[in-house]
Amino acid sequence: MFVLGVDPGLSRCGYCVLRIGDGAPRAAALGVMRTDPDMDVPRRLAELRDDFRGLLDEFEPRSVAVERVLFQVNVRTAMGVGQASGVLMAEAAARGAEVVEYSPNQVKDAVAGHGDADKEQVQKMVQILLDLPAPPHPPDAADAAAVALTHVAMSGVLR
Amino acid sequence: MFVLGVDPGLSRCGYCVLRIGDGAPRAAALGVMRTDPDMDVPRRLAELRDDFRGLLDEFEPRSVAVERVLFQVNVRTAMGVGQASGVLMAEAAARGAEVVEYSPNQVKDAVAGHGDADKEQVQKMVQILLDLPAPPHPPDAADAAAVALTHVAMSGVLR
Repeated sequence: MFVLGVDPGLSRCGYCVLRIGDGAPRAAALGVMRTDPDMDVPRRLAELRDDFRGLLDEFEPRSVAVERVLFQVNVRTAMGVGQASGVLMAEAAARGAEVVEYSPNQVKDAVAGHGDADKEQVQKMVQILLDLPAPPHPPDAADAAAVALTHVAMSGVLR
Repeated sequence: MFVLGVDPGLSRCGYCVLRIGDGAPRAAALGVMRTDPDMDVPRRLAELRDDFRGLLDEFEPRSVAVERVLFQVNVRTAMGVGQASGVLMAEAAARGAEVVEYSPNQVKDAVAGHGDADKEQVQKMVQILLDLPAPPHPPDAADAAAVALTHVAMSGVLR
């Protein structure tokens, strides 16, 4: 059974597929979907949608955990992130997956033990929890792994 | 040939399909797609996606004009509007439609002649321009018609 975590974004969208079985969760896929900033936004959203569909086709995750979009200093970035998250959530829900959002603080708290953990601490904890040879890069991939791990911890999916 | 205008929203998403041929544009479809506020956001986005696909299937619009999301006082509403607009733009772009965004001020200026026109003025002008028996209700439907008319005016699609 698979859980898919995503850190939504238009330029870089982190994803992590966790394989849930006996023992600790392990990363079956981990990376970043990118779109070209020189393309127009609708086409970038359509590309992101197609890449995300590829993940849903391959792993058929039972649950999709999404890092909740907060309003940031950069309004333009926040809107792109919101649009990307809408596309991802609609696709996952249409497939019948459970879709759950977690706030950045919930994720940091679940993975690193406190809500004000920095990016390096999250990357390091993801490395340890998933028994990876190195901290995942870029941070978007680590954040996606962290939100997937948060869902595993908070939903009791292992029980 | 059809132009589809949308005023994105999660609770109410206005749409207007304009038939472009000889003479003035006429409304081939005009209304509002609604989702249930008691459902969770991912499922609402999936429903909106399916309703929107129905419009794309029926009319195969060459162009889709979208009212650009601005940040509003209500952050929660703005995020829902952003997520909805992302879903619509991705679907339309994936079909190969031209997707163009217009700001609320561009729309008011194009339809009512000045950027600070109020909702009633926009509804009245839409009624006149599309030769409707009454101003379109609710305002979301009128706004969708206005953004479609803006695209017709600004893209020179009639020429």
